[in-house]
Amino acid sequence: MKNVEHIGIAVKNFDEANSLYSKLLGVEAYKTEFVASENVNTSFFKVGQTKIELLEGVTPDSAISKFIEKRGEGIHHIAIEVDDILAEMERLKSEGFTLLNELPKRGADNKLVCFVHPKSANGVLVELTQEAR
Amino acid sequence: MKNVEHIGIAVKNFDEANSLYSKLLGVEAYKTEFVASENVNTSFFKVGQTKIELLEGVTPDSAISKFIEKRGEGIHHIAIEVDDILAEMERLKSEGFTLLNELPKRGADNKLVCFVHPKSANGVLVELTQEAR
Repeated sequence: MKNVEHIGIAVKNFDEANSLYSKLLGVEAYKTEFVASENVNTSFFKVGQTKIELLEGVTPDSAISKFIEKRGEGIHHIAIEVDDILAEMERLKSEGFTLLNELPKRGADNKLVCFVHPKSANGVLVELTQEAR
Repeated sequence: MKNVEHIGIAVKNFDEANSLYSKLLGVEAYKTEFVASENVNTSFFKVGQTKIELLEGVTPDSAISKFIEKRGEGIHHIAIEVDDILAEMERLKSEGFTLLNELPKRGADNKLVCFVHPKSANGVLVELTQEAR
């Protein structure tokens, strides 16, 4: 576990949230990206080693839209960068953690990702992430 | 805004959560601290530049106990390190953000802290933090 790569925040209105977070953090988003597989708009702000990622669902069935419907806006997940995602997935499974996907999948920002079930981690949705080669 | 200093996670059972997070993160907590002013037990895990802070309320009226009663366990706040907390507080007020305290207060880990109201930041409780001198 190398560092907290990003913190994902579920927002209702992408433009308003981008404007607000640029004021809050004192920097503009350095990138926005539509992730078709998840039906989300994403934007990234740099704060030291860590990125703040805003996430807006663009369809009602997107995981982000459902999260907001259930819990309201707020922090959706934290992503931890690892060197070897397959090895970390094996290690966590052997420690009894429940993973939400059996194999890494492609996320935003050219990453391979895997999620740990929040029930395994005191209500926190933890993403493992590794730069895709 | 220098870096994400820590991510605070509200937990029900301090010992169980410490054991679980040491497995999840692959490191032991390097410090535990009781913060009397907030009635919370805290523990800190290092992940790169960022700390993961577990928080357990020790009385029902602690903010952490109330948070868990309302929302369940999970991420409670993110803390961003700043060089000059008073200047950042002024800047955020002038940008229209609502601060939860007028003056910095003393937090865990020898820090001065100030909270931005979650209503100002898409449901995210943001802590500004500066090393106390």
